[in-house]
Amino acid sequence: MSAIQKNVEATSEQYSSSFTKGDLVLPPAKKYLVLTCMDARIDPAQAFGIELGDAHVIRNAGASAVDALRSIVISEQLLGTTEIVLVKHTGCGMLTFKNEDAYGVVEKSLGAEAVEELKAKSLDFLPFSHLDDAVEDDVRFLKASKLVPDSVTISGWVYEVETGKTRRVV
Amino acid sequence: MSAIQKNVEATSEQYSSSFTKGDLVLPPAKKYLVLTCMDARIDPAQAFGIELGDAHVIRNAGASAVDALRSIVISEQLLGTTEIVLVKHTGCGMLTFKNEDAYGVVEKSLGAEAVEELKAKSLDFLPFSHLDDAVEDDVRFLKASKLVPDSVTISGWVYEVETGKTRRVV
Repeated sequence: MSAIQKNVEATSEQYSSSFTKGDLVLPPAKKYLVLTCMDARIDPAQAFGIELGDAHVIRNAGASAVDALRSIVISEQLLGTTEIVLVKHTGCGMLTFKNEDAYGVVEKSLGAEAVEELKAKSLDFLPFSHLDDAVEDDVRFLKASKLVPDSVTISGWVYEVETGKTRRVV
Repeated sequence: MSAIQKNVEATSEQYSSSFTKGDLVLPPAKKYLVLTCMDARIDPAQAFGIELGDAHVIRNAGASAVDALRSIVISEQLLGTTEIVLVKHTGCGMLTFKNEDAYGVVEKSLGAEAVEELKAKSLDFLPFSHLDDAVEDDVRFLKASKLVPDSVTISGWVYEVETGKTRRVV
């Protein structure tokens, strides 16, 4: 068992021993979803004030709305959320490369077969070059999608990994 | 401004006022990633013992490895993670419907144009019918992918929303 797996088991023992929230229901109590980046420096519950049971939290590389669309549709259409809080962040890895760079890294590290798999899946890494613009682009994408009704409230934000602040963009 | 947006702003004030982790670097310190569900009843940091800066956290509907592949490749190939902890959970919404049900809900709620958009994007909601099997399937998918090298350690778990416990499946 790896050190990380041991940590999951030890944490589980401790966390469950004082756990009191076993009666929470499936649909988020406050009917919203937060979409943010997978970045290790973000703790959405603490930084954005999410109590257990209140909101769906979707996280992927770059807080991409395009990549998150499946989860967003499920959240809204099947589980009743009516508001989206989209949060990208300073220092995001997605600002540091382009698709061709990532394809090059995969080829060098994993070989031609891995690149074939990327191509077979039409995998777009969805990097971006300007942070605030990317927030606006993603909010625009969601507002334009027929899969997100106009009744859904959408806001776009930037979390600053240097200060712990979250500022509104749109 | 909605109540949820006000909560983000108020939390930001408070969180940043005592924030001391502004020097954390981009790559996860403990070189691992956690993939879990967007479900509102999961707090990955608390339940799985993730300190700020230690691990990427990817979340989507059902903790789908297929859906998360873009983020996983970025995490490993560009940001140096070498271990995956995949956690699905009891009471998951993905156990409660099939693709055709979701398409039906979208059509009834949002109309034919929305269904056209689903079809144009070939959107598969990726539901599953058995929890432990789905964990095993996803671990198998990752192990079979050329995009995840054999050197990456992968474990699969189930978090129990009723008890706060996390148990190993594979």
